[in-house]
Amino acid sequence: MTGLKRTTEKNLMVFSGRAHPELADEVAALLDQQLVPTQAYQFANGELYVRFEESVRGCDAFVIQSHTTPINEWIMEHLIMVDALKRASAKRITVVMPFWGYSRQDKKHRGREPISARLVADLFKTAGADRIITVDLHADQLQGFFDGPVDHLMALPLLAEHIKSKYGEQPLAVVSPDAGRIKVAERWSSRLGGAPLAFIHKTRRTDVANEVVANRVVGEVKGRICVLTDDMIDTGGTITKACEALIADGAAGVVIAATHAILSDPAVDRLKNCSATEVVITNTLPVPPEKQFDKLTTLSIAPLVARAIREVFEDGSVTSMFDGQA
Amino acid sequence: MTGLKRTTEKNLMVFSGRAHPELADEVAALLDQQLVPTQAYQFANGELYVRFEESVRGCDAFVIQSHTTPINEWIMEHLIMVDALKRASAKRITVVMPFWGYSRQDKKHRGREPISARLVADLFKTAGADRIITVDLHADQLQGFFDGPVDHLMALPLLAEHIKSKYGEQPLAVVSPDAGRIKVAERWSSRLGGAPLAFIHKTRRTDVANEVVANRVVGEVKGRICVLTDDMIDTGGTITKACEALIADGAAGVVIAATHAILSDPAVDRLKNCSATEVVITNTLPVPPEKQFDKLTTLSIAPLVARAIREVFEDGSVTSMFDGQA
Amino acid sequence: MTGLKRTTEKNLMVFSGRAHPELADEVAALLDQQLVPTQAYQFANGELYVRFEESVRGCDAFVIQSHTTPINEWIMEHLIMVDALKRASAKRITVVMPFWGYSRQDKKHRGREPISARLVADLFKTAGADRIITVDLHADQLQGFFDGPVDHLMALPLLAEHIKSKYGEQPLAVVSPDAGRIKVAERWSSRLGGAPLAFIHKTRRTDVANEVVANRVVGEVKGRICVLTDDMIDTGGTITKACEALIADGAAGVVIAATHAILSDPAVDRLKNCSATEVVITNTLPVPPEKQFDKLTTLSIAPLVARAIREVFEDGSVTSMFDGQA
Amino acid sequence: MTGLKRTTEKNLMVFSGRAHPELADEVAALLDQQLVPTQAYQFANGELYVRFEESVRGCDAFVIQSHTTPINEWIMEHLIMVDALKRASAKRITVVMPFWGYSRQDKKHRGREPISARLVADLFKTAGADRIITVDLHADQLQGFFDGPVDHLMALPLLAEHIKSKYGEQPLAVVSPDAGRIKVAERWSSRLGGAPLAFIHKTRRTDVANEVVANRVVGEVKGRICVLTDDMIDTGGTITKACEALIADGAAGVVIAATHAILSDPAVDRLKNCSATEVVITNTLPVPPEKQFDKLTTLSIAPLVARAIREVFEDGSVTSMFDGQA
Amino acid sequence: MTGLKRTTEKNLMVFSGRAHPELADEVAALLDQQLVPTQAYQFANGELYVRFEESVRGCDAFVIQSHTTPINEWIMEHLIMVDALKRASAKRITVVMPFWGYSRQDKKHRGREPISARLVADLFKTAGADRIITVDLHADQLQGFFDGPVDHLMALPLLAEHIKSKYGEQPLAVVSPDAGRIKVAERWSSRLGGAPLAFIHKTRRTDVANEVVANRVVGEVKGRICVLTDDMIDTGGTITKACEALIADGAAGVVIAATHAILSDPAVDRLKNCSATEVVITNTLPVPPEKQFDKLTTLSIAPLVARAIREVFEDGSVTSMFDGQA
Amino acid sequence: MTGLKRTTEKNLMVFSGRAHPELADEVAALLDQQLVPTQAYQFANGELYVRFEESVRGCDAFVIQSHTTPINEWIMEHLIMVDALKRASAKRITVVMPFWGYSRQDKKHRGREPISARLVADLFKTAGADRIITVDLHADQLQGFFDGPVDHLMALPLLAEHIKSKYGEQPLAVVSPDAGRIKVAERWSSRLGGAPLAFIHKTRRTDVANEVVANRVVGEVKGRICVLTDDMIDTGGTITKACEALIADGAAGVVIAATHAILSDPAVDRLKNCSATEVVITNTLPVPPEKQFDKLTTLSIAPLVARAIREVFEDGSVTSMFDGQA
Repeated sequence: MTGLKRTTEKNLMVFSGRAHPELADEVAALLDQQLVPTQAYQFANGELYVRFEESVRGCDAFVIQSHTTPINEWIMEHLIMVDALKRASAKRITVVMPFWGYSRQDKKHRGREPISARLVADLFKTAGADRIITVDLHADQLQGFFDGPVDHLMALPLLAEHIKSKYGEQPLAVVSPDAGRIKVAERWSSRLGGAPLAFIHKTRRTDVANEVVANRVVGEVKGRICVLTDDMIDTGGTITKACEALIADGAAGVVIAATHAILSDPAVDRLKNCSATEVVITNTLPVPPEKQFDKLTTLSIAPLVARAIREVFEDGSVTSMFDGQA
Repeated sequence: MTGLKRTTEKNLMVFSGRAHPELADEVAALLDQQLVPTQAYQFANGELYVRFEESVRGCDAFVIQSHTTPINEWIMEHLIMVDALKRASAKRITVVMPFWGYSRQDKKHRGREPISARLVADLFKTAGADRIITVDLHADQLQGFFDGPVDHLMALPLLAEHIKSKYGEQPLAVVSPDAGRIKVAERWSSRLGGAPLAFIHKTRRTDVANEVVANRVVGEVKGRICVLTDDMIDTGGTITKACEALIADGAAGVVIAATHAILSDPAVDRLKNCSATEVVITNTLPVPPEKQFDKLTTLSIAPLVARAIREVFEDGSVTSMFDGQA
Repeated sequence: MTGLKRTTEKNLMVFSGRAHPELADEVAALLDQQLVPTQAYQFANGELYVRFEESVRGCDAFVIQSHTTPINEWIMEHLIMVDALKRASAKRITVVMPFWGYSRQDKKHRGREPISARLVADLFKTAGADRIITVDLHADQLQGFFDGPVDHLMALPLLAEHIKSKYGEQPLAVVSPDAGRIKVAERWSSRLGGAPLAFIHKTRRTDVANEVVANRVVGEVKGRICVLTDDMIDTGGTITKACEALIADGAAGVVIAATHAILSDPAVDRLKNCSATEVVITNTLPVPPEKQFDKLTTLSIAPLVARAIREVFEDGSVTSMFDGQA
Repeated sequence: MTGLKRTTEKNLMVFSGRAHPELADEVAALLDQQLVPTQAYQFANGELYVRFEESVRGCDAFVIQSHTTPINEWIMEHLIMVDALKRASAKRITVVMPFWGYSRQDKKHRGREPISARLVADLFKTAGADRIITVDLHADQLQGFFDGPVDHLMALPLLAEHIKSKYGEQPLAVVSPDAGRIKVAERWSSRLGGAPLAFIHKTRRTDVANEVVANRVVGEVKGRICVLTDDMIDTGGTITKACEALIADGAAGVVIAATHAILSDPAVDRLKNCSATEVVITNTLPVPPEKQFDKLTTLSIAPLVARAIREVFEDGSVTSMFDGQA
Repeated sequence: MTGLKRTTEKNLMVFSGRAHPELADEVAALLDQQLVPTQAYQFANGELYVRFEESVRGCDAFVIQSHTTPINEWIMEHLIMVDALKRASAKRITVVMPFWGYSRQDKKHRGREPISARLVADLFKTAGADRIITVDLHADQLQGFFDGPVDHLMALPLLAEHIKSKYGEQPLAVVSPDAGRIKVAERWSSRLGGAPLAFIHKTRRTDVANEVVANRVVGEVKGRICVLTDDMIDTGGTITKACEALIADGAAGVVIAATHAILSDPAVDRLKNCSATEVVITNTLPVPPEKQFDKLTTLSIAPLVARAIREVFEDGSVTSMFDGQA
Repeated sequence: MTGLKRTTEKNLMVFSGRAHPELADEVAALLDQQLVPTQAYQFANGELYVRFEESVRGCDAFVIQSHTTPINEWIMEHLIMVDALKRASAKRITVVMPFWGYSRQDKKHRGREPISARLVADLFKTAGADRIITVDLHADQLQGFFDGPVDHLMALPLLAEHIKSKYGEQPLAVVSPDAGRIKVAERWSSRLGGAPLAFIHKTRRTDVANEVVANRVVGEVKGRICVLTDDMIDTGGTITKACEALIADGAAGVVIAATHAILSDPAVDRLKNCSATEVVITNTLPVPPEKQFDKLTTLSIAPLVARAIREVFEDGSVTSMFDGQA
C-alpha cells in the first residue's frame, strides 16, 4: 500500500484584532495560551494591514475582535485577518465576535433598507469563516443568518450570579424595560429563584392614537430591588427612563444589568445621573477609562468565551454550558 | 455590425401547485390571466410529478403554493415546480408562498435544533427561485434568511378595513394575546383611528417562580369591542383563552382577527365555542368546508397578491402598497 | 511557538429518521453502536421537528433514512436532520439513503419536466451533506448528480448468495424483465457460475406499429429455475407478467429477486398470485407486516451498509467490497 | 421620478471556435447572420488565445464548438471563449456543443474513476455558461449534469426523413446494434410508419459463462432493408459486425444511420468494407475529406441548430420542434 | 397561449454614497439625471444606515462611491448600498469605484499576509454586485480578481490632453518615477506625439549590496519639460524625489501627472515645496479645500465615468472609448 | 455517551499525470514514497481516461502535473485526476503545478480578451482542488486568482546557489532582460552577495515615437560575468538579444538563468548559438532529449517541491523555506 501515515494533530491558536486586546489577552491566558504575534497597522490612507508572525498552517484558529467604535474599521480588520488565515492554510477559522456588529439591522422596517446583519454574516463567510462564536444576540434569528454553526453564548448566568450574591438577601424583582423583551426577563426570574416579573409599558391615551402618556410599571415592584435588564445599552435613554419610573413606583432600588455596553453619548451621563445604584455590564465591548464611573461594575466575559473555545476545540459541548439552551 | 436585434418582451405567467388552487385561480383572474395548464400527480409510491403544458421559455414566472397540510408534500411540489421552470428556461422565478412553511422554526431555542425556516429559504434558492413573495411573516427577520429580494406583504389593511366598516361605530380596543406581539397591535391601533391598546399578560405569583396564576388583561377593555389580533391561529388555545379573559374583564365583545388560518385540531371547536362574535381570517391557507363555521369570515388575500405580482412584473413598487413599510 | 496541540480524534455517530428505524437499529448494532437519541415529531400542522439529545460536535455523522411512503415527509425529515447536524458542528455528514427518492425521475422525457433526482441531490448538498451512501441506483449516472463522493453499494452479492445456496443444485437461468436491463443480468449470471441469460422481449406485430403482441422470452429457459431480477418492484406489473411468460415457456420455476421493495398497490396481490415460488428482496425500504406474505424472503441490507459505514469511517475501501466495481 | 428609461433590446450574436467552422457558418447563414469576427490562435507553447473583434456587450451569445479531435484543445478553446464573453459583458451565454465531449464517461464503472461528463458540465458553468444546446446525448441523464437549462435536440427526424424518402417504398426493419438501446429504435420505428424492430443479441453459450458465441439477430429481417441505428460511430466495430450478421440472416440490405460521426481509426475502413449500402450521418462533428467515402451521406444538422437558436432567442419553444419530447 | 406580454424597459438610476458626492452629482448631471434621493447616516455607535427614497425595482443601478479616507467606512457604506439594492429588486448592480480600495495589497509579499484587493472584490460580489467600473488599476491583474465584467477606464487621454494643450509647444519628455512602471510611460509617450522616455533608476553601489546611492535619471531630459507620471500619489515621497532628480539633471521643468490623488500627509507639503511647476490630477478621490494648493490642477473624471455608464446602459462599447484597449 | 472514537490518521499520497513523470518520481522518492499506481490513457477520439489502482479514501492527495505541450491535454488530465480524487473521497486535494498554465494571460490587454490564468484557477477549484503549490509565477498577483491557499515556491535560492558555487570567485553582475522585472534581479543580487545590477533598456529615438534603436545596457557590466535572469524562456528571443548586447558592452561572459524552460521553437537554436556560456534552468517543465544541448544545465526542482509537500502535510511552514517570503 502506497502512502505515508501520521497521526493527525490539531493546534489551537488564538488571534486578536486591535479593537479590544485586553479581552483577547484574558481569553488566551485562560487557555494557557499567548495570542499569536500579529503585525497590524494602518497605511497613510487608512487601509489596514495585517500579518501573522508565526506559521498558522493547519491550525484551529479563533479570531477575536470586538465590533466597537470605529466599528467599520474593526469589522474590516476582522475580515482581513480571516482572509490572511485562509490563504495561510489555517484548517478551521472560528470568528469570535462577542458583539455582532450591525445586529440591530436584522430586518427591513421599511422598503429599500439593507439587512446589514445578514450582510455581515455573508461577508465573514466569504472571507473564509467556518463558524461564529457570539454572545447574546439582539434577536435569536440571527443564528440563521450564517450558513454554518453559530455558538450563541449567554451572559445571563454570569450577570445573575453577581446580582444574586450581592442582592440575593433582599426582595428582588426582574424588570424588562420593554414589553417586547419579557421572555429574557423570565429567564432572569428563574435564575434568581423566582423573583417576580415586571415590565415598563408605554401607555397611550385611550382616546388619542400614538400619544404616549407615561412609562407605566406593570407588576409589583414596591419595596423591591429591581433588576432592570436588557441585552445592550447604547445611548441609555430607554433604560434610564425605566429606572426613574421604577423609583417613582416605589421600588426600593434599581440595579441595571446588560451584556453589551455600547455606551454611545450621552449614555454615561445618563447612567451616572440616574437613580440606579449599580450598573452591571460585561466587557464584550471595551469600556475606555473615560467612560467608567463609580457605580459601574464590569464583569469579564472572558471565562465564558474561553470555555466555549475550549469546548469547540475539544469537540465538547457548548450547549452543556447553558443547560441545553445554546 | 454583426447581430440580430429585437425588442425584448417580458411575459407574465402564473403557475399553481395543487395545495390551494382556488386562491391561485382568483389571483390569476385578477391579473386577467389563466393559470398555466399543468399536469401534476403522485406516483404510486408518493413521488410527485409535474409538467407544464405550454412553453414557459423566457417567462416571468410566479409560482403560487400554499404551505398547508400535508405541508411537506406541498413544499416538495413547490420545489419541483421551480426546478422544472428553471430547466425549461423561465427567465425569472418568483416563489409565492402566502404562508412560509416552517416559519416558526426560525432559531435554535436549544442546542442541536435545526433552523428549518432558513433551510426552506435555501432549498428554494437551490431549486432555482430568484425571489419570494410572502405574507405576514412570524418574525420579520425571515426576510434575511433568503439571499435575494423578499416582498413581504401585510394583510393588516385588509383585515382592519373589514373591522372598521363593521364595528367602527362602536368603541374599540386592540388586544394582543401575548406581550411579545404588542408592536403589531400598535399598527392595528393606528389603522383603527387610535383605538386603545391592551394585551394579555400571563401573570405569575410573585412568591413562586414560573407559576402562572391567570391571563391578566392589561389595558382598558371594559365596554369595548376587543379586536384580538395575531399572525396565525394554529390550535387556537392561546387566542381563545385570551378571548375569555377579555369577556371576564368586561369587554363588550370580542372579534378575533388573524392572517394565517392553520386551524389544526382542535382549533375549530375552540373557536366555535369561544365567546368571540366573529373570527376574521384570510385565505393564505385553504379552509376546507368541514372547517368552516358560522361566525368565521374569510377575506381574500388574492387582490393583495395579484397587485404585488403586477407591481413586480411592471417594475412598480410593492413598498408603495403599504405606505413605505414593506 | 504559540498553540495548544492535541491528537485529533474522530467519532462515529449513527442517526436515524423515523421512516425505517429497524434498519438503522440493525446497522448501529453491527457497528456496536446505539443510535444517537433523537427527538422527532410532527407539529399540529405537519411541520417536522428534530433535536439530537447528545452533543454531536465534531462527530462523523451517518444519517440513515429510508425514502419510503410518505416519501416527501421522510425526505424533509432527512433534510432537517442534516441541517441540525450542520448547525450543531458535526464534522462530516454522510447521508445514507438506501433507496434514493425520486431516482426514476432522472431525465426529461418530455419538455418542461423536472429532473427531480438531481433536485434531491442538490437539496441534500444545500442542507449540508458532504457525501452519500446509497444502494443500487436505477441509473448509474445518478452518481454524477451529487457534487461529492457517492458510495454506491450493490445488493447483488447478497441476493445471489441466497439464490445460490437455495437453488444452486438445480439448472438456473437469469432473466431480465426488460431488454434495457440486460447488463445487470449479465453480472448475475457471472455470480451464479455462468447461468445462461434470457430476457423478456415485448414483441410487436411487424405490420402494425406499436402494437404489442406478447411478452416473448428470448433465451433458453425450458426446464430451468429462472431468476427474474430487477432493481425495484413498484406495482409489480411488469415483473409478474414476465413471470407468467416464463412459466408458459416451460420454465421449471421462477424466483423473483429485487433490491428495492416499494410494493405499491397492487404489488402484493400480484406477487402473491403469480407463479413465482419465491420473491427475494432486501430491506432498503421497510415492508410493513400487512405487506408480507408467505413466499416473500427479506434479506437484510444492514450488514452491507454497516460495513460501508465502517470503511468510510476508517478510511478503508468501499470499492474493495465489490471487487473494484463501486 | 428619477431614472432614464429605454426600451430593452436583445441582440443575437453567433460565435464559433475553430473546430468546425463550416457548421457554424451554415448555422449563422440560416439565421441571416455573420459569425462575430474572432481572433484565435495558439501561442508557441500551445496556450490558446481568443479575442472578439466587435463589441459583445449585452448580447445574447451562442457559442458553437464541435468537441472533435483534438478534443481537449477544442474544449479549452470553448471554455476560454465563454470566459471572454462573460468578462466582456455578454448578457446571456449559450454553449452550443452538438456533441458533448466526454459524454460516455457519465458514471463510475469502477471505483476511483472520474465522471468526466459531469466535470465538463461544471467547467462550462464555472467559465460562465448560462445554458447548453446539444444533440442526441449518449444518456438522457446528462441533462441533469448541468445546473441550468439544457436544450436537447434530436437528429432522428432528420435522419429518418432521409431514409424514408430513399427507401420508403421497400420493406424496412429498424435494428438496434445493442439490446440496451432498443428504446431509440422504437422511436425510429414509429417515425418510419411502424417498421418492425429487431436487434442484435450477443448470445452466450448456456453452459459456459461469458463466452460469446455469436451476434444473433432477434426479430424479422429477412428480405427487408435494415436501418441499423446508433447515436454515434467511434471505431465502428460493433456496428459493422451487426451489419454482417444482418446480411447473414437474410436482410435485403443494410443502411447505417448515426448522429455523431466520430470515425476514429479504423472506422472508415470498416465502414467502407462492410456490406452496408449507405452510411448516413450528420455533421455534428466535422468529417475531413480524407475520411469521406462513396457510400457516406452527411446530412446537415445546421437547420436544426439554427432553429433551436432562434427559438431560444425569440422565447419560442424548442420542445415544439420535437412534438413535446425535448 | 397563456401569458401577459409587455415590452421590457430598462431604467438607468445613479446612486451615490457620501464619500464624494460632488463627483457623483457631476456624473449624474452629465447623464441628465438626478442622483436617487438616499437617506444615509451613522448610528451612535458608528453603524451605517442607508435607505433609498424611491422605488428601485427593476432598475439598472450604478452605485458610485470613492474609496477615500475614512476608507473602511466608505467601503462598508458601499457594500450596504449594494445589499439594499439587491433586496429592493434592482435588476443589475454596477459598482462604480473610481479608485479600488486596497488595490495595492494585490499579492502576498511575505507569508501570512492577506490579499485584500481580492477580498474587496469578493465582498462586493457577495453583497450583490454584478459588475465593476473602475479607473486606472495599480496592477491590471486586478481585473481578474472579480468574477464578472470589470470595465477598466483610463485617465491617460484626459491627462495627456491637458499636458499637450498647455505644454505641447515645448520639448517634452515622459518620465516614470520607477523602472517597474515604464510601460505606462510608453503609452504616455505615444499620446504625446512620441516624446522621449526616461525613468528614475535607484542606483546601487556595485560593491555593496542594497545600498542606494542616488536616484539616477535614465534618458535624455536636459532642456525638456518632464512629464512625471504615476497612477497615484499617496505620501508623495517617491515622486517629489524624482522631481528633484530631474531638475538636477537639467530638466527645463517638471509637470507631475497622476490619476489618483490620495494625498496622505505629508503629500501636500512635499508637492507644494517641490520644483514641479504643476501637479495634474483627477477627482477620482475628493480633494478637500485644505489640501488644495496653487499649482494643483484637478481634471474631472466625471465625463469619462458618465460615458462609460452610458455605454454600459446602452449596450455600447467601453472598449471603443480607448481604441480597443479597455 | 454514544459514539465510536478513533485517533485520526492522515495519509500522504502522491499522484502524477503523464506530462512529466520523471519529476513526480523524483519528488515521490524524496518523500520515501511511490507514486500511486494510476491507469491513464486516451480513447480513440482523444478523450482521456484516468483511474487510481489503490484506495485513496481519506488521503491527503498531492497531484503533480507539468503544464507543458500539449498543454490543454495535460491540463484536462490534471482536472480529471482531481475530479476522480474528489469522487473517491480524498480528504484534501493539493494541485501541484510547477508551471501554472496560461499564467501569462493574467489581464485584459485589450477589450474582449479572456483572463485565462484566472479561468484555470477556477477550473481547478470547480474540479475539487483545495489548494495549489506552484513555482515562480509570472506575476505575483496570480496568488489572488485562486480562492484558497497558494504555496508559491521560489527557484531563486536553487539557481543562485549553482551560480555562486561555479562563478562566485569572479566579478558578477545581475542583469534583467527587461526594465519591468528589475525587482526579481534585486533579489538575485542580494543572494549573490551584493553583485551589481544592470538591465537591458530598449532605447527609442528621442525624436521619433516608438522606434527602438537598440538594446541598451544600463549598469556596469564591463569585465563581469553577467547573470541574465528571467522567470521563463519561451522562444528565447528577448533573452538571447540581451545576451549579445551584454557581450557587445564588454561583459566577460554571460550565464542565463531561468526557472521555466518552455523552449518553444526556435528557443533551442537561439540559445545554442548565443554567446552565453551556460544556460541554467530547472525541470518544472520536461526538457526532452532532443531539446538538450551542451551548455544547458538542468537543476532539479524536485527537492523544493518535495519539501513543500512535506511541510504542507506536516503542518510545518512553507514560508520558512524562503525566509518569510512565500
